[in-house]
Amino acid sequence: MNSGFFITLEGGEGSGKSVQCSKLYERLMQCYGSQSVVKTREPGGSAGAELIRNMLLTGEVDRWFPVSEMLLFYAARYDHWRRTILPTLLRGGIVICDRFFDSSVVYQGGGHGIPRKYFDAIHEMFEDIDSERSFFPDRTYVLDIEPHEGVARSNARISQSVEQEDRFERIDIAFHQKVRHEYLAILDKNPARCVKIDASQSIEQIHHDIWQDLTSVLTLHGFEQILPLA
Amino acid sequence: MNSGFFITLEGGEGSGKSVQCSKLYERLMQCYGSQSVVKTREPGGSAGAELIRNMLLTGEVDRWFPVSEMLLFYAARYDHWRRTILPTLLRGGIVICDRFFDSSVVYQGGGHGIPRKYFDAIHEMFEDIDSERSFFPDRTYVLDIEPHEGVARSNARISQSVEQEDRFERIDIAFHQKVRHEYLAILDKNPARCVKIDASQSIEQIHHDIWQDLTSVLTLHGFEQILPLA
Repeated sequence: MNSGFFITLEGGEGSGKSVQCSKLYERLMQCYGSQSVVKTREPGGSAGAELIRNMLLTGEVDRWFPVSEMLLFYAARYDHWRRTILPTLLRGGIVICDRFFDSSVVYQGGGHGIPRKYFDAIHEMFEDIDSERSFFPDRTYVLDIEPHEGVARSNARISQSVEQEDRFERIDIAFHQKVRHEYLAILDKNPARCVKIDASQSIEQIHHDIWQDLTSVLTLHGFEQILPLA
Repeated sequence: MNSGFFITLEGGEGSGKSVQCSKLYERLMQCYGSQSVVKTREPGGSAGAELIRNMLLTGEVDRWFPVSEMLLFYAARYDHWRRTILPTLLRGGIVICDRFFDSSVVYQGGGHGIPRKYFDAIHEMFEDIDSERSFFPDRTYVLDIEPHEGVARSNARISQSVEQEDRFERIDIAFHQKVRHEYLAILDKNPARCVKIDASQSIEQIHHDIWQDLTSVLTLHGFEQILPLA
């Protein structure tokens, strides 16, 4: 358990990432104890990153130009990485993160058209300046859902609760189509890291699919005390 | 006067940039009228950038890692550029800006060691995404001062007024030496854009030196109605 294990969950609106993060967190805590598992999310996850989160998720849809938005996400991400994620990994823990850099690539890249090479340059800077451990996740689950279905689910959730729609949920469906297309491209280009999960299934089935993959990967990484599938 | 004229003033602590920006602004308004000249400063200069400014200049010296700090400065800069500077230039105006990207290169690059190539990648993104006009200044005046003298001046100014020391003024002298060294390197590499000004001179003499250079450059750029030197 030398450099920990870093899991990210990705997906469009209404794909059910947050519920799956919570289920995964509970189950991993049963296996490894609450001291060994940290659940976090982006944007946010550290004091500085939470301040930036507040600037990003509130206000008008066009409050920020995509370039500023992208840079704010990475400023928050570096703080989150250095203060929350990296320390947990370096003491051998498991981190579950709801969204990470793939979200920037799909939303500000695929969605808003910022070329991929600029994301790669920032990733290279992160790896270059902080070389204790790669900041690339060990495993990324992409919860894939058809955008109409996802947005309908997300709207139903909002109307049934006090939850506030955030700035990204108010963007039109064509944008969410581009986001899904970019997620599928990421899956295609990163078969060793990224796993596609059918998010139109039931919550229990999605969790089962993630857990089945994760147990085999964790065993390969030397996490021994894994419990058998329920 | 098609694409306007973009002037930046740069320099370390106590180099007197802000006073010179004001003097230059007054004089340019006498020549071209108040509608044609905009004075601004970084970080800040637009609503979004001012929010980021507040996060950058307050709090503990180590509040942000240099990578996050650099990305926050550029997020603010892009907003400032697109909402304040570029619109003024596109209507043929003159912009005077107190600090611009050279400050990032010297503080987060020269001062904190982030390699130059990552700044270049972000500059390339700015140029690539927004190609109406280059975001490089037409003329940059680097007010050069020996760091001990500059910091002493800056401290004297603070003790005589209600002015608050900002987060960058509390960094040690070795850091300010690196900053000066990096400014001198920028002057060396950009002789067509950057002009070194001896900031140990009197306020009037510094203004005279800047004005003498600027009048000749503005004439070359087709700004005709320039007044003679006083």
